[in-house]
Amino acid sequence: MEKDILFGSCLPPFGDCADRFVLSGYSGVKRTPVEMIKRAGKVKSLSGIELVGTWHLSDNNIREIKKVVEDVGLKICMVTPDMWARGKWGKGGFTSREEKIRKEAIGDVKASMDWAIELDCDAIDLWFGQDGYDYLFQANYVEAWDRLVEATRECADYRPEVKVCLEYKIKEPRTHIFVGTAGKALLLAKEVNRNNVGVLVDVGHALAAGENPAESIALLSRSKKLFYLHFNDNYATWDDDMMVGSVHLPQYLELLYWLKRTGYKGWHTLDIFPYREDGVRAVEESIAWIKGLYELLNRIDYQRIEKIIEEGDATQASGILRTSILSWSQS
Amino acid sequence: MEKDILFGSCLPPFGDCADRFVLSGYSGVKRTPVEMIKRAGKVKSLSGIELVGTWHLSDNNIREIKKVVEDVGLKICMVTPDMWARGKWGKGGFTSREEKIRKEAIGDVKASMDWAIELDCDAIDLWFGQDGYDYLFQANYVEAWDRLVEATRECADYRPEVKVCLEYKIKEPRTHIFVGTAGKALLLAKEVNRNNVGVLVDVGHALAAGENPAESIALLSRSKKLFYLHFNDNYATWDDDMMVGSVHLPQYLELLYWLKRTGYKGWHTLDIFPYREDGVRAVEESIAWIKGLYELLNRIDYQRIEKIIEEGDATQASGILRTSILSWSQS
Amino acid sequence: MEKDILFGSCLPPFGDCADRFVLSGYSGVKRTPVEMIKRAGKVKSLSGIELVGTWHLSDNNIREIKKVVEDVGLKICMVTPDMWARGKWGKGGFTSREEKIRKEAIGDVKASMDWAIELDCDAIDLWFGQDGYDYLFQANYVEAWDRLVEATRECADYRPEVKVCLEYKIKEPRTHIFVGTAGKALLLAKEVNRNNVGVLVDVGHALAAGENPAESIALLSRSKKLFYLHFNDNYATWDDDMMVGSVHLPQYLELLYWLKRTGYKGWHTLDIFPYREDGVRAVEESIAWIKGLYELLNRIDYQRIEKIIEEGDATQASGILRTSILSWSQS
Amino acid sequence: MEKDILFGSCLPPFGDCADRFVLSGYSGVKRTPVEMIKRAGKVKSLSGIELVGTWHLSDNNIREIKKVVEDVGLKICMVTPDMWARGKWGKGGFTSREEKIRKEAIGDVKASMDWAIELDCDAIDLWFGQDGYDYLFQANYVEAWDRLVEATRECADYRPEVKVCLEYKIKEPRTHIFVGTAGKALLLAKEVNRNNVGVLVDVGHALAAGENPAESIALLSRSKKLFYLHFNDNYATWDDDMMVGSVHLPQYLELLYWLKRTGYKGWHTLDIFPYREDGVRAVEESIAWIKGLYELLNRIDYQRIEKIIEEGDATQASGILRTSILSWSQS
Repeated sequence: MEKDILFGSCLPPFGDCADRFVLSGYSGVKRTPVEMIKRAGKVKSLSGIELVGTWHLSDNNIREIKKVVEDVGLKICMVTPDMWARGKWGKGGFTSREEKIRKEAIGDVKASMDWAIELDCDAIDLWFGQDGYDYLFQANYVEAWDRLVEATRECADYRPEVKVCLEYKIKEPRTHIFVGTAGKALLLAKEVNRNNVGVLVDVGHALAAGENPAESIALLSRSKKLFYLHFNDNYATWDDDMMVGSVHLPQYLELLYWLKRTGYKGWHTLDIFPYREDGVRAVEESIAWIKGLYELLNRIDYQRIEKIIEEGDATQASGILRTSILSWSQS
Repeated sequence: MEKDILFGSCLPPFGDCADRFVLSGYSGVKRTPVEMIKRAGKVKSLSGIELVGTWHLSDNNIREIKKVVEDVGLKICMVTPDMWARGKWGKGGFTSREEKIRKEAIGDVKASMDWAIELDCDAIDLWFGQDGYDYLFQANYVEAWDRLVEATRECADYRPEVKVCLEYKIKEPRTHIFVGTAGKALLLAKEVNRNNVGVLVDVGHALAAGENPAESIALLSRSKKLFYLHFNDNYATWDDDMMVGSVHLPQYLELLYWLKRTGYKGWHTLDIFPYREDGVRAVEESIAWIKGLYELLNRIDYQRIEKIIEEGDATQASGILRTSILSWSQS
Repeated sequence: MEKDILFGSCLPPFGDCADRFVLSGYSGVKRTPVEMIKRAGKVKSLSGIELVGTWHLSDNNIREIKKVVEDVGLKICMVTPDMWARGKWGKGGFTSREEKIRKEAIGDVKASMDWAIELDCDAIDLWFGQDGYDYLFQANYVEAWDRLVEATRECADYRPEVKVCLEYKIKEPRTHIFVGTAGKALLLAKEVNRNNVGVLVDVGHALAAGENPAESIALLSRSKKLFYLHFNDNYATWDDDMMVGSVHLPQYLELLYWLKRTGYKGWHTLDIFPYREDGVRAVEESIAWIKGLYELLNRIDYQRIEKIIEEGDATQASGILRTSILSWSQS
Repeated sequence: MEKDILFGSCLPPFGDCADRFVLSGYSGVKRTPVEMIKRAGKVKSLSGIELVGTWHLSDNNIREIKKVVEDVGLKICMVTPDMWARGKWGKGGFTSREEKIRKEAIGDVKASMDWAIELDCDAIDLWFGQDGYDYLFQANYVEAWDRLVEATRECADYRPEVKVCLEYKIKEPRTHIFVGTAGKALLLAKEVNRNNVGVLVDVGHALAAGENPAESIALLSRSKKLFYLHFNDNYATWDDDMMVGSVHLPQYLELLYWLKRTGYKGWHTLDIFPYREDGVRAVEESIAWIKGLYELLNRIDYQRIEKIIEEGDATQASGILRTSILSWSQS
């Protein structure tokens, strides 16, 4: 049974989603962080939420937020420092050319680590969305990488009890983000070389980078660096942040299989942007898919599937999935 | 029930599949067309096969081939003139700069139409794989299109009782093929303006062109120009010619739904290249998926799904698929 | 000489560019439409600007806008009705399921045609950004296409003296937009079947749809349906709206060659989003590239390049480009 | 001056290029390795060639080959063991499930190292083209990686004086290759942890993996693991193996800039597949582009470009490229 899966969610589904064409948001309903958390509290299968520093969290509201989260019966599964949501980060945080900006970024990350501890949360999410480049002849790739290693190490050492989860993404908002793939994220984690530094796999980011998510999480697990997961779906060219299972159904099945096989016990956190959907229903639907796919896996003879993988027999692999998915059928 | 679905297959799964690195083929077993047809005859759900002019068919062997096909209980569902499998077509057939080549191409297509009639087959497949370009400043796009229209019309008029199925593909073997998308194939069919000229949708080609196959077949059906279908799967960047259902499971479900809804009664022909798999099993597995997915669709309340589409409610659409696929579940 | 090229621009470079992560904009400087127009007026090579209905234009401000545009010495090269920038269009304009929304969309487009006439502008840009779908089983493709044809025809007939330019884009803000490729846009224009209905090629949209822009404009010119052009660049997977020439340099050369060859005399309008750059400089730089590439083309022997294309000799095509681009070299 | 650049080439341009549709080759002219080497010898700017073990090299012909190569005035810049060109490697070499196959692969690689030494060549190219998977639930990612590390280390230790160059590619002939990106190749090299193990960047493979080649070589140089380079071009979705400079002109400029900046002194080896072109001319044209682009770089004020990169000013970067490329212009 998968009764012990911990489901989390980012807050956007409980607020209003905007894009560059509809800056005012698709629903037009504005909600405060507290209101969003209360909405999240109504999703029965949800155990945790993520908060973004400065968007949702500040020194001023942290006590209020903590109380509301407790009141609605949730935990905070992740604190994400903002190093990407204000114009001042536009040309990078940790890799900014301006020392002042770099220091502010490091300072904000450390503040997020403090907040995390105060909120009984053991992890922060370092997403380097603005640390990249758009044009050719615009970046010093070598220096950028040096700065990433250095700043990440400094933050990791500040609070060794807080897990620093490196979230990779190949593009958006920059056309090229330095930490773009599972391979590069693992390289960075290894070079930083601290026990509390690992990788966050956002399934949609993996897909948009041309990765097979199952392979990526297996590779990270092999180095004990798979720390956290974001769930969503897309059409493999962009971070569409869609509901789980809507596009990459077989890939999700294989991903969950490898999460089980490698013993992943962490959060299953939704990072979806339901621009035109009801956010609560979109989260519930995504959780229902994940639960259902885990149940489907449980119905498949584990030793048989292991044997098929050992033999690499694609036709048998197809057959076992088919007969499981179409189980009411006699074939 | 879908008892009346006609399943066909191209011949490669019953021979040996090669690529540019392993030119001698992955299995190393060479088979003649007759041997391949006999192997095809052993697949119980198979009713038809496709033959490629000059690869499998010639004036010399046509009677022998016809007899073997009958003996094994199959029909010939499609004759495909070779306008792409020999070096002489390397820079195009219908759009070749050399008048001699263009005339040979047209002649070969007409010969294929004659063969089709002799083989009780009502259709030929015009695939313009070499009619394109690789480099910039290499093609006269306007002239190429003129030639496509003219030559296709000439062939169509030669045998109005034979359906001319325009098969589009965005690339391979050229980096750019003129007739690359459903939109362009439909434009060509409309400009040729003959009742016996329509479009062949190869599902993998549609995916590799960034199309949602269901949308493409609906658009073609709307203009009464959906003539034929090739089934296979891939990872949406290349024509991997994989087994059906292995990657694009939800897309296949929607495709079959729209085939039903638009009343498609034609062949479901496999065009797969099982390089490293047993070809017979790969074909059987693909057919089992198509049958299974049709059965799955039959289990879904047709009016409810129609209503969901009318309302465009993505969360409900997800829910109806989920509860059908995971039907043993209580959710 | 290319002295008579008309350069235009959309307004975003003269304001502030935002995306879904930095909704408040990267520069943080807010400008009114009048202020943006005044900034545009300072770009010496610029002759025209595009205005978006309701964003920049309304019945209330039209006289003021007209005067400011004249004062700064510009023309209005295009009026773009807003059918995509407010939450109410989120599920489509012309193809909305709600009759009320469809009527509002048609009404707004007609109002834009009136404004265009009042502003001495002969064209409107119909961009169907929200007319598409995100999820499978969410759209009725057949009905959507019927509605597109009908509504476009109604608008075209309302003001036959105004050119209706159909702007295609494959995705964003929807994951799938109905009018997604040059082929589909031409199909729509042909089915609408009105002289004042043609196609707007946004070069970046063509690239993001996997098209070679030169081929697309040649194909449209062949049917006399190339009405207007948007210039920008990207990395061929997304509408990055970058400065011209930054990525697809050889493709731009071929595009300009075919514009010359097919006798395009219309606007060269920039549609760039310089999120992190100075907008005025980004526009100037883009115009300098276009001018420079036209001059480069003028330096190439026109008959020789025509002959190379006629022969399809890729190595010679490469050579002529190389020796032109590296003209100071002796090779 | 770049007089000291060493240009090499693989042999396919001097023979006949085939693909899965035209297995007999586009030119139809068959040549032996000796004939191909003699043709290569006629390209004046060429200093070296690559040889593939078992395709071109065997214990029987090695002395003859060595002599011919010397006679035509070339060097052997690389020996590539065949672990991908025969059906027996179809399901992998180093990562095969069959111990027998793994041992043969390791044996063949070691034999190639012996041949390299005998041929005065200091490097072998380990390309893992068949070491991957096609279908989901087909691969044991963890075990595959373990085997890659182990077998590579065993080979590296066999001949520490021979450089083992890990060539990554994201797909083809498998739909997924384990060593698919610069990041993963560097991870593998670091885990193998031998001085003679580094990475071979095939520019086209980098592009097809969604990488910016300049960034990839900078990242590898930073870890002293950039060992060798293959030059070619494509449309960034597939390994089209086209002539250099035909598509990614600005990217090539930036790549060469970073090669200079990081002090790369190694071979510039062409790996192109001129299916429909004259191979000798295609190689000459590619070399002319590389030389020309290096000369173009030399004409740009080095300190100014360094400063632009340090400042990350995209508009200035565009301007410096533009005025260099269009240098005859006054702008």
